[in-house]
Amino acid sequence: MNPQFDSIGKQFVDFYYKAFDANRSELAGLYRPHSMMTFEGVQLQSAEAIMQKLVSLPFQKVQHVVTTVDCQPTTDGGVLVMVVGQLKTDDDPPHGFSQTFVLNNDGSNWFIFSDLFRLVVHSV
Amino acid sequence: MNPQFDSIGKQFVDFYYKAFDANRSELAGLYRPHSMMTFEGVQLQSAEAIMQKLVSLPFQKVQHVVTTVDCQPTTDGGVLVMVVGQLKTDDDPPHGFSQTFVLNNDGSNWFIFSDLFRLVVHSV
Repeated sequence: MNPQFDSIGKQFVDFYYKAFDANRSELAGLYRPHSMMTFEGVQLQSAEAIMQKLVSLPFQKVQHVVTTVDCQPTTDGGVLVMVVGQLKTDDDPPHGFSQTFVLNNDGSNWFIFSDLFRLVVHSV
Repeated sequence: MNPQFDSIGKQFVDFYYKAFDANRSELAGLYRPHSMMTFEGVQLQSAEAIMQKLVSLPFQKVQHVVTTVDCQPTTDGGVLVMVVGQLKTDDDPPHGFSQTFVLNNDGSNWFIFSDLFRLVVHSV
């Protein structure tokens, strides 16, 4: 297990949302051909499919405000990260979101193996 | 990767919250000595430490209402699960929560390797 899991996870979260909010096409380098994303229940696999989804999201301005970041080590040296925060898009009111990542290392770089995103919207 | 990841994750979630809400001491069998839980930012390790925390939570009645469950396979045959839902305790108003699990199989039983829980409470 990676003893640096907490700082790796928190640095990643900081980098990820800054890049997402500034120019989300820059996130392409964080995904690999076998990366998986589940975005609002839709399953995507590969950096190409994930980026196609992210860049097509229909807003111009976006800001992620992180509320909490919790990290745990995985058995294979990776890092499990759960984020709770608020998403502000264009001039809409903020929405809560929850996002979970599994980060792995290919020997020289960290990449996203798993990514699950949900707006926190309850029907009751 | 386990091709049954989606049904395994969803059956687990159904079982877990039913057991939690009926008699949470029954959850002990789902954790192992090396299981990790991060509960509202507090890190716990071992079934014993986790159960001590869960049974000491200061409410009599509890109900988890699940809004969404998203599952992905892990590289070692396990299942990554992200849950968004609402927690109703005693006569308090419901609170949103987010919980992420990593489930592993010891050859005959599924157990929780990772568990991260947060109430969804934003300061802004």
